[in-house]
Amino acid sequence: MDIKEQLNEVFKALQAKRALIHHITNYVTVNDCANVVLAIGASPIMADEISEVEEMVGICDALVLNIGTANERTITSMLKAGRAANTKGIPVVLDPVGVGATSFRHGSVAKLMKAISFSVIRGNMAEIKTIAGLEAKSAGVDSLEEESDGAKIALNLAQKLNCVIAITGKTDMVSDGKVCYALDNGAIALTQLTGTGCMSTSLIGSFMGASKNALGSAVAGILTISIAGEVAEKSRGLGTFHTSLIDAISQMDVKTIFDKCNVSLIKQ
Amino acid sequence: MDIKEQLNEVFKALQAKRALIHHITNYVTVNDCANVVLAIGASPIMADEISEVEEMVGICDALVLNIGTANERTITSMLKAGRAANTKGIPVVLDPVGVGATSFRHGSVAKLMKAISFSVIRGNMAEIKTIAGLEAKSAGVDSLEEESDGAKIALNLAQKLNCVIAITGKTDMVSDGKVCYALDNGAIALTQLTGTGCMSTSLIGSFMGASKNALGSAVAGILTISIAGEVAEKSRGLGTFHTSLIDAISQMDVKTIFDKCNVSLIKQ
Amino acid sequence: MDIKEQLNEVFKALQAKRALIHHITNYVTVNDCANVVLAIGASPIMADEISEVEEMVGICDALVLNIGTANERTITSMLKAGRAANTKGIPVVLDPVGVGATSFRHGSVAKLMKAISFSVIRGNMAEIKTIAGLEAKSAGVDSLEEESDGAKIALNLAQKLNCVIAITGKTDMVSDGKVCYALDNGAIALTQLTGTGCMSTSLIGSFMGASKNALGSAVAGILTISIAGEVAEKSRGLGTFHTSLIDAISQMDVKTIFDKCNVSLIKQ
Repeated sequence: MDIKEQLNEVFKALQAKRALIHHITNYVTVNDCANVVLAIGASPIMADEISEVEEMVGICDALVLNIGTANERTITSMLKAGRAANTKGIPVVLDPVGVGATSFRHGSVAKLMKAISFSVIRGNMAEIKTIAGLEAKSAGVDSLEEESDGAKIALNLAQKLNCVIAITGKTDMVSDGKVCYALDNGAIALTQLTGTGCMSTSLIGSFMGASKNALGSAVAGILTISIAGEVAEKSRGLGTFHTSLIDAISQMDVKTIFDKCNVSLIKQ
Repeated sequence: MDIKEQLNEVFKALQAKRALIHHITNYVTVNDCANVVLAIGASPIMADEISEVEEMVGICDALVLNIGTANERTITSMLKAGRAANTKGIPVVLDPVGVGATSFRHGSVAKLMKAISFSVIRGNMAEIKTIAGLEAKSAGVDSLEEESDGAKIALNLAQKLNCVIAITGKTDMVSDGKVCYALDNGAIALTQLTGTGCMSTSLIGSFMGASKNALGSAVAGILTISIAGEVAEKSRGLGTFHTSLIDAISQMDVKTIFDKCNVSLIKQ
Repeated sequence: MDIKEQLNEVFKALQAKRALIHHITNYVTVNDCANVVLAIGASPIMADEISEVEEMVGICDALVLNIGTANERTITSMLKAGRAANTKGIPVVLDPVGVGATSFRHGSVAKLMKAISFSVIRGNMAEIKTIAGLEAKSAGVDSLEEESDGAKIALNLAQKLNCVIAITGKTDMVSDGKVCYALDNGAIALTQLTGTGCMSTSLIGSFMGASKNALGSAVAGILTISIAGEVAEKSRGLGTFHTSLIDAISQMDVKTIFDKCNVSLIKQ
């Protein structure tokens, strides 16, 4: 199935089913994450109490774990929710925000990856290189990495972890370990607004909850925010861009994606 | 006093006094809740540290408890704040977000209802039915319930709990156990934006802090957001709708409410 | 160096270096804080896990501590982060939100001030008077204080604490203990939107991270939001004002500041 067919499939799946997406996520960007999940046609649930996350994930269609402002308590909740999701066949998506910044983040992601099988892991180049055990240059939660080896890194890590790896940056790389797609959409302003990475992970989770197609969901989620970023007006500043970005996501459909997407299959 | 007189009263009370509204609420929609409280002319305080909530509620005019992302710690804070509010005659408003979704939520709301006398409880049909001990169909934090028995359920539960019950949905039902009003305002887009339920609860808390009139405050709070939803422009998408909704709340007055409201007294 | 030279200096410093600003802050306004830090050209990191804050602050250029929704756990994190920042020469900015409202807040700020040397403390008149040990009238997180003694209070407290004190209100007073500037910019709507105080503190932190000039950063941060407030359109309501405020901050430069600022040196 080529990528256009997969995009068709995941958009159709999301129209057919109002997927519930359980998030254990950071408090910085959580409102935007909830709103983009709604804007694309799924339904968000945020819940992180240790004693309820197993039950909560059990009524959901996908789980999104985002470590942006994680602490010991919420990492414990993530472990419980992720294990329960795995047991029940509910897909889990990971956003390892700033994983290279501190030992706590590094250790927490190691624990999560040991305990949980992920369907998709999305991060910037520094985050994905850190997960791959490669040396990575970052500044806080931002990557300072070159992107030239992206396809190789995505392919190798996807094979190793048996999950879809999405590296977002100027060119996004998405691989399931067999093929790798390069996505050349986006807008500079997306790097000037907090939470656009988190939002793309929540969009991936939304498509995943409806379709269970990890590769298609990762490509669809990233294209949705990248193309919405192209559509959004920035001339008046970052506040207007923020509003226009949510507007564009709420009006996104597969036709707009097809018209504007710049996707290429990387030759091995 | 008919409902128009009560609406007049609660709007006048809010103009006469800058009510302070203490919230222990969820981190998903808290910014919007603070902004709608300010937009309607009250003043928000968010504080959930166990050792300060009794003192904080003591300087406030109303307390809003919202369990959207509650955990063991914040439920303890809610219990302490609610008991202190009751002792001091400060009205307490409850938003039992997703109460039917997990045992933790169900048990927490049971504890809150046992320990605290509420002035107003606002929820969707599934949440209110769960509180009433009736079987309820929900999907996460959304209700999948028919609304046909709303008036009866609101009346009975209001009588049983001796507080105002507000069931929001396509038609909202508000009852103090003696009368029940059906409110037929709103906009589809209000269901596509996160936090509109939380915002309506915070608006109820704002009117309540100034007026102490529970029935009038519940009707005023719900009409404020419903009519603001009608006024807000959605043509450009959900981001613009979000902005326009806050605009409309900040410009709401009792004249606009009277011009646009569609309220009917349910005959017993 | 007069204040215009200092403003030039801090804006140039921020253009020359993408400063990383570590926040331990409240969940009400955190998204706006992150976005204004990005809008002015710095980079935000929010992290409050006790076991990671020392490491996190070590890779940053400034630390912002905001007690808006602090609890025992996050105060512990603030103490650890602040001490580590002091050891490494990283400037720390404090926003003592509602310090007079509860014993917990008062005690927590006392602990923070005992353990940490601050570069800048920004608050409203009631907050700063509380810190100065003077009697203060407040309503929750809002000040009910007259502003007539502002210059004297700012100067004395700045001398006593050996840090820059910024009192924001109708006229803002900023002093390093030697000189005191009165800033007469701003807009009423800034008092009707949640988080504008927090945002100004985060802007101060951003300039401070790049320039290490405390007096210039405090003046620049406050002028940035005050003048952005003047530029922002409010005619359509508070939602539009919010969006326009972020727009204006993302377009702020030292030329706009010079064109519009109303700064005067207070004669002793």
